[in-house]
Amino acid sequence: MKAIINVSLKEGVLDPQGKAAHHALGSLGFDNVTDVRIGKQIVVTLDAADRAQAEKELDDMAQTLLANTVIEDYTIEIVG
Amino acid sequence: MKAIINVSLKEGVLDPQGKAAHHALGSLGFDNVTDVRIGKQIVVTLDAADRAQAEKELDDMAQTLLANTVIEDYTIEIVG
Repeated sequence: MKAIINVSLKEGVLDPQGKAAHHALGSLGFDNVTDVRIGKQIVVTLDAADRAQAEKELDDMAQTLLANTVIEDYTIEIVG
Repeated sequence: MKAIINVSLKEGVLDPQGKAAHHALGSLGFDNVTDVRIGKQIVVTLDAADRAQAEKELDDMAQTLLANTVIEDYTIEIVG
């Protein structure tokens, strides 16, 4: 089973990597960009009996390791 | 207009960050995980006249700055 966990900084949390990309895009002439935020896309392949069990385990993984829930939000999507 | 650019390492390119996460998940007891790959999810907000123009500009941004096309693939999705 394959799942995508998207981890992004919460609104209001400063995103220096996004700011740097935004600035660099401006320097390259892309001056119509108003905001850039950069998060992580984590693709996890796992053996699981069913979808519900996989979702539970992926949520545990996100909570314990993959996301820092103080400053980050995450979404889980099973893709295959 | 808001778009998501997902940047991921091409198949066959070593992903040390993903390997480290895989190993850490194993140490935490998630021993049914067979693979972890970590990419970037870049959320770009921009002013564009229409969808086609936005897609063209986002493709230029990915090619010139946001992705390293030698080792990375990217997808562009307009979300709003």
